[in-house]
Amino acid sequence: SEVKKIAVIAGDGIGPEVVAEAEKVLKRTEEVFGYAFETEHALFGGIAIDERGTPLPEDTLEICRSADAVLLGAVGGPKWDNNSKELRPETGLLGIRKALGLFSNLRPAVVFDCLKDASTLKPEVLEGTDLMVVRELTGGIYFGDKLRRQGEHGEEAVDTCVYNVMEVERIVRQAFEIAGKRRNKLASVDKANVLETSRLWREVVNKIAPEYPEVEVEHVLVDNCAMQLLRRPASFDVIVTENMFGDILSDEAAMLTGSIGMLASASMGDGNYGLYEPVHGSAPDIAGQGLANPIATILSLALMYRLTFGYEDAAAAIEAAVAEVLDAGHRTSDIAVDKSKAISTSEMGDLIVAAI
Amino acid sequence: SEVKKIAVIAGDGIGPEVVAEAEKVLKRTEEVFGYAFETEHALFGGIAIDERGTPLPEDTLEICRSADAVLLGAVGGPKWDNNSKELRPETGLLGIRKALGLFSNLRPAVVFDCLKDASTLKPEVLEGTDLMVVRELTGGIYFGDKLRRQGEHGEEAVDTCVYNVMEVERIVRQAFEIAGKRRNKLASVDKANVLETSRLWREVVNKIAPEYPEVEVEHVLVDNCAMQLLRRPASFDVIVTENMFGDILSDEAAMLTGSIGMLASASMGDGNYGLYEPVHGSAPDIAGQGLANPIATILSLALMYRLTFGYEDAAAAIEAAVAEVLDAGHRTSDIAVDKSKAISTSEMGDLIVAAI
Ligand SMILES: CC(C)[C@H](C(=O)O)[C@@H](O)C(=O)O
Ligand SMILES: CC(C)[C@H](C(=O)O)[C@@H](O)C(=O)O
Repeated sequence: SEVKKIAVIAGDGIGPEVVAEAEKVLKRTEEVFGYAFETEHALFGGIAIDERGTPLPEDTLEICRSADAVLLGAVGGPKWDNNSKELRPETGLLGIRKALGLFSNLRPAVVFDCLKDASTLKPEVLEGTDLMVVRELTGGIYFGDKLRRQGEHGEEAVDTCVYNVMEVERIVRQAFEIAGKRRNKLASVDKANVLETSRLWREVVNKIAPEYPEVEVEHVLVDNCAMQLLRRPASFDVIVTENMFGDILSDEAAMLTGSIGMLASASMGDGNYGLYEPVHGSAPDIAGQGLANPIATILSLALMYRLTFGYEDAAAAIEAAVAEVLDAGHRTSDIAVDKSKAISTSEMGDLIVAAI
Repeated sequence: SEVKKIAVIAGDGIGPEVVAEAEKVLKRTEEVFGYAFETEHALFGGIAIDERGTPLPEDTLEICRSADAVLLGAVGGPKWDNNSKELRPETGLLGIRKALGLFSNLRPAVVFDCLKDASTLKPEVLEGTDLMVVRELTGGIYFGDKLRRQGEHGEEAVDTCVYNVMEVERIVRQAFEIAGKRRNKLASVDKANVLETSRLWREVVNKIAPEYPEVEVEHVLVDNCAMQLLRRPASFDVIVTENMFGDILSDEAAMLTGSIGMLASASMGDGNYGLYEPVHGSAPDIAGQGLANPIATILSLALMYRLTFGYEDAAAAIEAAVAEVLDAGHRTSDIAVDKSKAISTSEMGDLIVAAI
């Protein structure tokens, strides 16, 4: 079959280690399923600041643009935290999302059986939790005008939150499509009792809803959603919301599963183009020691196969291999009950490769 | 002693029932401690929309302004949810906060022993949780300019988030003062990696911190805070944050205690002026049936005695009476394990009165 191009961004901290394991899995799926990939590595984040003086070099963007999908490890670390805005990894992250038009961030929050005790929630509350946060990723207060000015009461700072109908429509439509392929439930989260952007958001949801009569829609205020995620996590299927609320709620949802170190995410643009990355961060404290868990990154690759390439066989095989290795009791130290039996990053990668 | 004036706003749903019990407690503390209060009732919220065509009549504001403190039951209900903005209870709520200058919202989240099983969190995680969210209440995206306009891609909506140094200073200073009287820990929550208002916020916190050397300050990003509240709730003491983040995080914090139906809150202005209300809402589904739990409202009165009047003896007596009645096993139906043994709203009020 046709050769697909994947831009690979290892990034900072444990990024290079976990990405290396995902690349082993990629090679294995080429052999087993006959797919052909060309990978090209690109500098991004802290390492790009160090080596190139900017978190998002132009040639990195070029590599990503010429690829069919991007696999990202993790970026950031204390080393760059006190840099000026233009020299911070986060600025690169916001920049790449905007430049590649990745307006839709999919964050599935599921409970891994072997990790359900890791949650701080009671097992009976968590039972059956399997939700997906669809977060708008290139609009809202993240990208609106920002400024400092002198006001009546001293210096003041301003952030602007803007949404237009097109931006809301495309993400809401995607959320309806996703809900339709899952359990047909969509919770649209806003603060329509206070914000004008939320009122627009709600109008668009109500306008589109009749096109998806099989999907049951509920409007949930963001403060109430923060509570209901704790109270009845299993009752949610798809949650769609704007950028800032999605940032907060997707992290809350991921944490309550207890499985945050194992969760994959996708940031999608128009068509099937997407950037795939683990939900966890760059964990600089354990970087370079072979302690990192590569599963979330490997599952991000599976998500890429499914959503960008439609290689469902390879996606399912990766997921089954991960389940098999976990069922056999293998654990990296982050998820090991008995740390003395923990295996390394590359041992975990090798076991998953062998199980495919 | 001097006669203190309290504006009493019963509001909607269960508001009148729970406020009536708090007024019984008020009378009892007059007798026992010799304090003298004058109360004046005022219309506000849905009932004010029905009777006066506005959620916040001018004379209600006058009554509040001429009082030393305000006791509020609850406002809102489905009846008014589809009204236009000016005719919605929430608009009254935002209006009264702004008009009375209530810039600081204190939401203590504590675990009641008798309710610790009501939480969806594991008891061992919850153990020792006793935190206070200090939320900025009259600034930020709640009160910035809002508009609709025609843009390049169809209609667009805009919300503006503004903070000036004075607004941040006064709330942050108050949070430091509160932390100093508690466990000397302050978590300042922002999104400084994205928002200009958050960068200003963080600068102000760092500027003020040296004035409170005994208070340990940590800066926590809002998404991380939503996670850490789940992971290590007991490690938080005071959390200070801007209006929108405070709305979300205080509800998350309240819910995770399992005691949300029992929590009191205070909204403070300059000096000791304050508006006190239960954290729970108007619960229209159970209104008028004697099923509501008046404890959160009674504890709000205790908070008023402490924070506005400095009547620590009466405040402590109310809190002790509530504990005594709960310890004796009395429960309203919301917190009763055996619903058939549940007592009514007024029975609960009477028992607490008798215990003072
Ligand atoms: C690093 C930060 C800018 C980013 C965000 O807020 O979007 C992160 O929290 C995330 O959720 O990917
Ligand atoms: C009703 C609403 C406007 C209000 C708010 O968002 O402040 C409420 O959620 C609260 O927290 O008191």
